This record gives sequence, C-alpha cells and structure tokens, in this order.
Amino acid sequence: MPELRKDPVVGRWVIVASERAQRPNDYKAASTAPRGGPCAFCEGREDATPGEILAVRPRGGAPNSRGWLARVVPNKFPALRIEGGLERRGQGLYDLMNGVGAHEVVIEAPQHLLSVTELPVAGLRNVLWLFRERMADLKRDSRFAYAMVFKNQGEAAGATMEHAHSQIIVTPIVPLLVEEEMRGAQRYHEFRERCLFCDIVDQEIRLQERVVLENGSFVSLEPFASRFAFETWILPRPHLGRFEDTPDDLLGELAQILRATLRRIETALSSPAYNMVLHTTPFSTPHAPWYHWHIEIIPRVTRVAGFEWGSGFYINTVPPEEAAKFLREVQES
Amino acid sequence: MPELRKDPVVGRWVIVASERAQRPNDYKAASTAPRGGPCAFCEGREDATPGEILAVRPRGGAPNSRGWLARVVPNKFPALRIEGGLERRGQGLYDLMNGVGAHEVVIEAPQHLLSVTELPVAGLRNVLWLFRERMADLKRDSRFAYAMVFKNQGEAAGATMEHAHSQIIVTPIVPLLVEEEMRGAQRYHEFRERCLFCDIVDQEIRLQERVVLENGSFVSLEPFASRFAFETWILPRPHLGRFEDTPDDLLGELAQILRATLRRIETALSSPAYNMVLHTTPFSTPHAPWYHWHIEIIPRVTRVAGFEWGSGFYINTVPPEEAAKFLREVQES
Repeated sequence: MPELRKDPVVGRWVIVASERAQRPNDYKAASTAPRGGPCAFCEGREDATPGEILAVRPRGGAPNSRGWLARVVPNKFPALRIEGGLERRGQGLYDLMNGVGAHEVVIEAPQHLLSVTELPVAGLRNVLWLFRERMADLKRDSRFAYAMVFKNQGEAAGATMEHAHSQIIVTPIVPLLVEEEMRGAQRYHEFRERCLFCDIVDQEIRLQERVVLENGSFVSLEPFASRFAFETWILPRPHLGRFEDTPDDLLGELAQILRATLRRIETALSSPAYNMVLHTTPFSTPHAPWYHWHIEIIPRVTRVAGFEWGSGFYINTVPPEEAAKFLREVQES
Repeated sequence: MPELRKDPVVGRWVIVASERAQRPNDYKAASTAPRGGPCAFCEGREDATPGEILAVRPRGGAPNSRGWLARVVPNKFPALRIEGGLERRGQGLYDLMNGVGAHEVVIEAPQHLLSVTELPVAGLRNVLWLFRERMADLKRDSRFAYAMVFKNQGEAAGATMEHAHSQIIVTPIVPLLVEEEMRGAQRYHEFRERCLFCDIVDQEIRLQERVVLENGSFVSLEPFASRFAFETWILPRPHLGRFEDTPDDLLGELAQILRATLRRIETALSSPAYNMVLHTTPFSTPHAPWYHWHIEIIPRVTRVAGFEWGSGFYINTVPPEEAAKFLREVQES
C-alpha cells in the first residue's frame, strides 16, 4: 500500500508509492517506453487495460469492446489505491496515512494519436466531458478531498505512454499549492468582495497585453507573474468555482479554445513536451465563492529548468507579454 | 532592468529577467554550452569574467590574477541588478518592483573540474567559507531580504557552464517556500517550545532509518516526506539559524560530510545532474529561534519528473528508507 506522508515543515503531503517503485539501481539508466502503435491504449486492445470505468460510445456497444471515442480506465500502476481506510497516524513527530485514492487514465482517442490536438473540437469535448463526469462521480466518496486532472505530454514532461491520454488522481488531502491558491483568493475576496480570478480576466481582456485567445466564454492568457516561459492559463469568463459544475454548452467552447491554444503552442515551439493541470475547488470545501477553476499549461521549453524545484523561486527569461504576442502572431501550420 | 512580479493568487515573487532573454524563437532548439576546458572560469582566464569580488588566495596576489583556489565574481548575465531602488508599484491589481539584487558566481576550483567533489575537503571548505563571507557582506545592504545559495550540477539541472561552480542570488523579497518553512517551523515552536529541525535531527539519529552519514556536528539524511527519489538534506546537529553565523570549525566538518554525501550520490547514481540549495534564515528576519539552516540536494534521476511543476504535488517512487540504505551501502569507486 502506498503511503501519504506529510512534510513536517511546510505541511506538504507527498505520495510515497513504494509498490510502483523501480529498484534504486534502475535509476542509473532512464527508462524509455516503446514507441509506435498499436499500443495498449489503441482500439482493439481493450483487454490490455484494466476494465473500463466510463466511455464515450455514440453507437452504444459493450464496455471493453470496440466502438469508443474516448475511454476512462483505472491506471494499471496506480499511485494510490481505491480500497481501504485512511488510518491517519503518527510516527514520532511525523504524520502519515494510507495511500487511498483513485488513479484513472483518460484515453483520448481510439487511434494512436500523439497529440490530443489531432482530434477535432468534438473529440476534445468528449475528453472534457469525461473529466467532468468522473469528477462528479468520485466526489460522492467522502474519503476524497481533491481531484487532480492533468496531462503529461511528451517524455520530457513525464509521459510513459505516447498515445494521447490524461490522468485523474483523486487524493484524500488537498495539495498544498491548491490550498495556498484558495487562501490567497479568499484573502482577496475578503478585502475586495470580488473574485480575484474574475478581476484578472477583466483586467487582461481590457489590457490585451497578455491575452492569447478569447471566445465567448473563455480566455487564454500568459499570467502576469509567469513562472515559466510560455506558461499559459485558460479561464472561464463567467465565475465558475468547480469544474464538475461546468454546463454542457461551455464544454464545447472550452474544447475550442483549448485546442486552438495548444495548437499555437505546438506550432510556435515545435510540439514541445508540456504539463497541463486543472485547478478547481476541492471536493472537501463546501462553499468557496472566491475560487474560480482554470487550466494551467506549462511547456517544457527550457531544458535548463534550474534550481526552481528545490527553492520554489522562479526566473523566467521570456516576459509573458512577448510570449503572448508570439503565440497570437504564430501562423498555424 | 529585470522585474520582480508578484503572483496575485499565492503571493509568489517571480523574476522576469527580460534582458537575459533569449528571443522566443530560440526556444525551438535547446541550447548547448561548449564542453571541455579551458573555459572562462579556469585559472589564467580571469579577464573573461567580471572583476573578482572575493577570492581564496593563500599566497596572496592581486585580484584577477592567477594563484587563487576559489573565487567569487558577479554573474555576467545577472538575473537581478545591484544598482537602484526597488520602486514598488502597482499595475491594476498586480504588484511589481525593480529587479534589484545581487547575482554572483562562486568558481570552486582553478582547474577545469566537472564536480566539486574532485577537490579535497579543504577545497570544499574554501567554497563554504566564500558562501559565508559573501552572505555576511551582502546582508549589510538593507535592500536585501534573502540570500539563496545554490548549485546546478549538470546540464539537466540547469548548469550552463560545466566548470564546477555555485551561485548566490540575493533578493529584496523572501522566496515563498522559505516563508512557508519559516511559518511552519514557527507554528511548531509555539506549540512545542522546541526547534522542529532539532527534533527531526534527534529522531532521525535515534531511528537510523533514513540517515546516510553523520559526523560530530552534522547529519545527512533522506527526509521522511521526500518529494524526489534520493532527495538528501544535510543539517547541523547544534541549533544554527543563519548560515552566515556558522563558526569556522564547523565549516570543515560541513565540507567533510557534504563531500562524502555527494560522492555517495555520484557513485550510486552514476554522477547524476542535481540541484543543491541552502535554506537559511532571511536577512530580513531579525530573530527566528525556530529556524535551522540546512542544505537540500535533489538529484535529477527521474527524467519523468511529471506534473509536479504545475501542481506542487509530488509522487516519489523510491521510499527514503530504501534510498538511505542504498546510499549507506554503496561502495565508493
């Protein structure tokens, strides 16, 4: 059973997933996953994954058969286990609990696509719909505090399978960074009686210095204090706290701006590796009028990522205004 | 002039160093620094760096001449500028200030060494002495709040020069992670009336599960909630809040354990890239009996670093107990 361990200094919970572990010796050589399809995520290989949890099957059909457009399965090597209680306990001055949670994979296309942007907008909408439905379902389990939806695109960003996919990790604790965001947004809300993210959206759309794209309900932009070159956020223009409450008609608009934004990043930066993370109100927070869900995209363009890992301190050599201009002006190939 | 910009959500300050910037187009190809010596950091090439600030010259000699063992120079491409005022200001709902601070390079050896561990203990002690002296000097400037001392070893960890060196970045703000550490340690101190780090050292030495090495005044260990495989900390056993107050006799012992710990990491993991960061009490905190300086070493052994960057949430597949055992048992080559 993996463990959740709490850093006694800053209170950060870390998954120590001993069962997934490679042996220490294995770290001498970096592992490389096999390339080229068909792979275990391709249509016709449904038996190569754990049994389907949910799928988009417009023409019906049995679970784990052909005929799906996108599909959610448990991760074969889960970082957390779905069974059991948390058993919070101490170990001297340390705190830990069982690594209980969910770890699911969203396979984004039946074909062996290397990027989700090869799908049309409707295909991306299916993926977003699966995110929403899985979150709404997992939220019913009272052990779970937060759903982290993310994508590692490319080996340099941590992907071990090249077939387009995302992941959902549901944790019994709220990640430290999300807690800090909640606290910061709450402080602003107490002071101004407005949502900080709504104010950011308003100001950015007015200024047009850091906006990459807009549509009726969304904006994609380079944040003012970007930690990374070409860090890009997508925010809903109306105030929406929880991704799982996003109405149907907005999913299509989100698919449109997400696809267009990712395509610009791919064109501008030659299909870089990137991480994409959804930030949303925790399941465990009953009422948070100050928080506003959004998506953060971090291209891995600098191999020289530096000491940021160990210090939490960032140096960004590309001003977000320049990055936004570059992305706005790039010609789609 | 670079800018310091504050993230409006979590309050993190980021250096946006536009003058160091490569153009956005440059990001298509990752840059590779030339390899092999002699380089601009080698003895005899003193004119290739900005003028010396401090050096270890046991047989005397003029600054910027031969005959040094270790040497501090300004960074030729500084992330922050030493001249000018902060001029804190707003921009709508955002906060920013001038990128004022110091950015220095500590060249660790006159020869073109690729690792500081090729030096004897006395050589490492010179480097640590330079850290201490520079911090004590920079602290006198009332604009400066924090000195971040760090090493990027290897290209994958962000090093652009292969000649063994460290860096000092002095900022007019305290990095968010350091502030959080201070807050967490203060909470513990209020509750227990003891230093959290002293308690960690005591418990770890008693348990001997995560200890890598010990000497009279220091311990190196894998922290209980390690974020990264083989994350290693070095802590002084006596309570010491500020690195710049470390007495002379402890510098030698620190050099010994630091060298021995790094050599074990190099042997065990085939000379991995790593980041090393000193965590110490901010200049701007007059009295903090709860904080205890320490060094954090983060080997870059997983190419698959994943989404941690964007989420602040970590999955570590090597339990620290296993990593410590592996490092204790490794045979030095």
